[in-house]
Order: sequence, then C-alpha cells, then structure tokens
Amino acid sequence: MPSTPLNRLSHISSHIASTSSDMANNGTSRPKVVVTRDLGPEVMPLLLNRAEKDIDILVWNQDRACDRTWLLENVAGASALIVLVTDKVDAELLNAAGPQLRVVSTMSVGYEHVNVYELARRNIKLGYTPDVLTDAVADISIMLALMAGRNARETMTIVNNGQWPEYNWAPFLFCGRQLSASRSSPIRVAGFIGFGRIAQATLARLVPFGFTDCLYTSNPSSKPNPSRDSQIATDQRLRSVRRVDLQTLAEQSDVVFVLAPGGDETANLVNEGFLKSMKKTAVLVNASRGSLVDSDALAKALREGWIWGAGLDVVKGEPGIAADHPLVKEPRCAILPHIGSATIETRLEMATLAVNNALAAIFDKDMPASLDLSAYSKQ
Amino acid sequence: MPSTPLNRLSHISSHIASTSSDMANNGTSRPKVVVTRDLGPEVMPLLLNRAEKDIDILVWNQDRACDRTWLLENVAGASALIVLVTDKVDAELLNAAGPQLRVVSTMSVGYEHVNVYELARRNIKLGYTPDVLTDAVADISIMLALMAGRNARETMTIVNNGQWPEYNWAPFLFCGRQLSASRSSPIRVAGFIGFGRIAQATLARLVPFGFTDCLYTSNPSSKPNPSRDSQIATDQRLRSVRRVDLQTLAEQSDVVFVLAPGGDETANLVNEGFLKSMKKTAVLVNASRGSLVDSDALAKALREGWIWGAGLDVVKGEPGIAADHPLVKEPRCAILPHIGSATIETRLEMATLAVNNALAAIFDKDMPASLDLSAYSKQ
Repeated sequence: MPSTPLNRLSHISSHIASTSSDMANNGTSRPKVVVTRDLGPEVMPLLLNRAEKDIDILVWNQDRACDRTWLLENVAGASALIVLVTDKVDAELLNAAGPQLRVVSTMSVGYEHVNVYELARRNIKLGYTPDVLTDAVADISIMLALMAGRNARETMTIVNNGQWPEYNWAPFLFCGRQLSASRSSPIRVAGFIGFGRIAQATLARLVPFGFTDCLYTSNPSSKPNPSRDSQIATDQRLRSVRRVDLQTLAEQSDVVFVLAPGGDETANLVNEGFLKSMKKTAVLVNASRGSLVDSDALAKALREGWIWGAGLDVVKGEPGIAADHPLVKEPRCAILPHIGSATIETRLEMATLAVNNALAAIFDKDMPASLDLSAYSKQ
Repeated sequence: MPSTPLNRLSHISSHIASTSSDMANNGTSRPKVVVTRDLGPEVMPLLLNRAEKDIDILVWNQDRACDRTWLLENVAGASALIVLVTDKVDAELLNAAGPQLRVVSTMSVGYEHVNVYELARRNIKLGYTPDVLTDAVADISIMLALMAGRNARETMTIVNNGQWPEYNWAPFLFCGRQLSASRSSPIRVAGFIGFGRIAQATLARLVPFGFTDCLYTSNPSSKPNPSRDSQIATDQRLRSVRRVDLQTLAEQSDVVFVLAPGGDETANLVNEGFLKSMKKTAVLVNASRGSLVDSDALAKALREGWIWGAGLDVVKGEPGIAADHPLVKEPRCAILPHIGSATIETRLEMATLAVNNALAAIFDKDMPASLDLSAYSKQ
C-alpha cells in the first residue's frame, strides 16, 4: 500500500496546498503528527490550520482501516500518533515510530488495542476520549431496554416483510413487558453490572419511567461507597441504590444493564447461572463489551424463556456475526452493530478531543483527557 | 358462525361448569353480559365468578375478531356489551341488542368504532379505558424517538441479514442524531402535536435526556393555559413550555411527537409543508393515529432528506400496509404494528377496567371510566 499524499483528501486539499512541499519531505523540525484516518471536514481543520505553522501532518486517507504496512513505513519520526480502535498499538509500531514519540491519542474510550505497558515503559502519554460518549451510550441503553421489552425486532420485522395485514387486533397480540411502572408492577428495579458514568446516566433516564430501586455490582477490588450511593438515591428520588452480589442482582432486577469494562476479569459474567436466576419477565441489555455475555447461554435463555428479551449493542466476536449466529437467530434478541457512541455529535467531540489530546502533549500543555499509566509501569 | 358455548373456552371451563345449564337458556332474570373476545385467564374470572351468582355471560371464544353475524344473533337481551376496537357498535347492533342495553364498554381509549350519537340518543352509557395506557404509549414514544435518530431499523437489518462483517469501524459509520443534549446541541426542544396525558408523560421522560424546552399545539377551540404550562416548566425544570402554532412547532423542534386524536379535524396535519419546515436533523414520531400524517409526504421527506428519520407506531390504512408501501420502503422509517399500549401490564389493566365499567353500569354503581355523552345528544 503506497503512502498517499495528504492532498488526495479532496475535502481538505485546499487547506494544505501551501504546505504540501514542506510535508513531502520530513526535513523540517516541526513535530510530525500521524493520523490513521481522515477525521472529517469538521475536525481535520484543527490539525490542518496548524500545518501551515507548527506541525507536519500525515493522514491515511483511504475509506477503510489504516493499512498496517503503510503505518509501519510512515510512522517514523512521529511525535504524535492519533489512532482508532482498529489500529493495534504495540512494541513493533512504537519501535517503528522512534524515541521521539510523545503521545498516542486514541479516538475511543476503550484502549484494549493499545499496549499500555509498552507506553508506560517508554514514557509515552496516552490520550483517550472518556465522558464525551456517556450520553450517547446511555441513550442506546434506554433504547435497547425498551426494544427488548416491547418485542421491537419481531414486530418491526413483521411490518418490514409486509405481514402486518395478516395480523388482526387481539387483546394480547404483540404484547411485551412494560419498562415503566404499572399498577401491577409498581416496584421497578434497575440492575447495573458496572456502575460508572454511563450506568449512572442510564439510571437518571430511568427515573421518570417510575423506577424505584437500583442495584449494582462493581469490581471486587473497589471500595464500597454507601454515602455516594445514598446521595444518588436522594438526588434521583429512588428508594434505594445498593451494591450487591451478582446473584442478588440477577434475581431482583427487572432490567439488567451490562456496562462494565471488557477483559479477562469480566468475561462471561452473564452466563447460564446468571440468566437462570433472572426473572422471566426481565430483559438484558449489553452496551459495553461482547465478552461479558456468554452468547450461547443467552441464546438458550431466550429460546427457553428464562428471560423476556435482550437488547445488545455488542456481541462477542463482532463484527464477525453471521446470519446463523445463535443470537441473530433469536427473534427476541435485538442486535445493533456497536453504535453506542455513533452519533454525529458525539463522534465529532471524540475526534476533536483526540486531536486536542495529541496537540496538547506535543506542545507540553495539559492534555484534556489522558490515562494515568503509572499503574502499568513495571519499574 | 354458530354460537359457541362458553365452556369451550378451555382455560375457564372449570369456573362455569355449574352454571352452564342456566346460561344455555336465557330464561333467567340475571343481566346478560356479552363479551366479544376472551379477555384471558387473568381477567375472565372477574366475570365468571359473578356468573354463579348474579349475571349471565356469553363470550365469543374464537381467536380472531368477533364475527358480526354471530354478534347480531347473540346480543339480544344483553344488558352490557364489552367490545374491542374491531367491533363496530352502530344502530344495527344496538337494535339487535334491544332496549334493555345499559352500557357499551370498550377495551380501548379510542371510540371511533362506536356511534356515540346513537348511544346518547338511547341513553346507553359508554365505558372506555383512558389513563391506564398512558405509560405504555409514552414508553413507545421515547423508544421511537431514539430509534428514528439512531438509525435503528437500518442498523438492525444489517445485523439480522448477516452483513455486519462487511462493515469495518470508521469514525462516522452508522452515525445518527443524538436525542440527548450534547456540547454542540445544548438546547433540545420537544414539540408535541396534542398535549394531553400521553404527551406530558413523554415530556417527563425526556427531561433527563437534557431537554430544555417544550412546544405544543392544541385543538384551536381549547383555551390557552399559561399557568398550567409554567407549572409544568417548573416541575420538569425546563426553560419553557409554550403553546405555539404548527409552523413554529415544525421549525423549532428537535423531535416532533404526534399525540393527538384522529378524525377529520386532525387529518394530515403533518403534510409536505410541515415536513419541509422541520429541521434536517429532527425526527418525527407518531404514536397516536395514522390519519394525522400524510404518508406520501413523509416518504418524500425521508427520501429527500428534509428530516433525519421517523418512528411510527401507526400508519394510515393499517393494518393493510404491504412491503411496497412507500413508508415501508424508507430505511429511515422505523414502523411498529400499533403496539403502543401492547404491554401485558397495560392490556390486563384495560381489560379489567372494561369489565369493571360494564359491571358497575349494570348494577347502578359509579363507572370507573365513562365518557360523558351529553355533547353527542341531539336533543
């Protein structure tokens, strides 16, 4: 894959015409910023306007994930590397960049694709984009909870296939489970596996649906925080906010939201045992990482009616999810292709933050959002 | 279609065995209750437990809408008639019932299927089921607003068809519009065509999404109520709640919710002119009646990008909506088969209320929910 000059990016070519000759050779002393994807006409000018003054820029400009070979060939001499979740940042890439690399800035809240130990060892900073996607993912979590309860996938498919005329109104036709409180279910319990920013934003959105109680589980190594919990309960006018064990959460929740980090420690937390303990009327939502849910167990739970339905934004093994995947075959399983943060508003904020993290680091300013890597330092 | 004895309803046969001989002839003096559909094992005992004491019951027990001929043949002598939206209650049916009919009780909030003038003229009471479906429909309204903004139909279809593997992550892949407020869109305006109970319940659910302002239109003959509006604004911590004209609502709303009654007065309120005035980033939700939205205009608006997306629980001409309907062909149009009140919790409450309305009327007690028919009286 050949290196492609920046000015092939048609929508930004006018900005860089005057600097393209400087950028064609790397003989300047300006810090070099390598970007593994065109970040769009709203965000790229943040870099390109600097290109005329104090930085050099090299951008992978194809409309697909950055080619590894291209990146290894072109990263040399970079001071900053702006990457996406599709780019693996490992020792090989860092070696190819060279010792002047000061910052890796990823346009994501997760950093599973980055070897944080290698960064810590080399004293390279890591920028990421927490917080800005909280609302977008909380919105998707509410949407999936509603869709799972209200049989949205089954009923939409009937309409899309032109089968609506085959169904005549009947008292309980298409009936799902109600997210909101009702006379027969005045107590509504939200359960959160993981209780960080996104979970708390999701909880806030549930309050006007008549939710009364919140249960959550946390990383066992984190300290309980009952005063924080009672403050949330007061603020949200809930009867209770309580940290519990997984079994209690499974048994008592009307909706279970999986909103914890991925990785080995949380793999398959939602397994057959968990699903069998859930209420038959409850729904499961996963908007974090596919690895937390055992797909085969969930498919069995839906097939055999252990729970009412599921709404998933992530599936283990994604995007390699074929039509015959056991969860795709379950009509009560609404699956989205990992669009939790996929709003124009949020992705623009993420891209802007990724650029600002990179620029701040190379010019010795405070990065707006950097991860503390001291825990990963082996010294 | 032959009259089918009640005890063919297998799940309730044990309740009525002792009274079936009484019920086979109508020679008793007990008031007769005709029910046009089996209302399920949770609700039917409310009637059947009375059947042993003080009422006779006749139920259409097929798993489809009540046959008109059967109903005309069997309604004679009824004191109460419990109906669904699929049953047309007109002069012919009321004549067939006879002058002793005291109440028609419909398991619905709408009563387009009932000739209210004929009821008023004969002094027959009308029971219906308002309020109990408010939360179920507000839930669907929020779900549809989210689905319309987040491209839920398009993205779910990709997964269901096994096409997810064909899509590689990209910064703006699958991006939709965010319902929640964001740094770039801190002002969020909800617009309601019709501002009754369901609209207000929907508004309450939008508040934690960061909505700041509410616009609404009302029946022109209803009086403005600014003190009520400012009270809602205070209660919901909104900057403003304002009654406006349709044009202003179209121009300023980020989400337009259609939640007004059907009928001639509201037909096609959402037409080409309205849709052209909406923001390109806005979405339209209809969870009331299909007649309020011009389907062809909406399909054109989606095709040509006048608005971002639409979420519909109702479509004009439903359920006769084929796969080649112009709205079904629009990928940015998420359509549900009129499931707004279709939760088990709500439908059980509606059925219970319909039974209680009928029983109260025949035993001269206050009906829990009756419509005042005085406006329809021609005297």
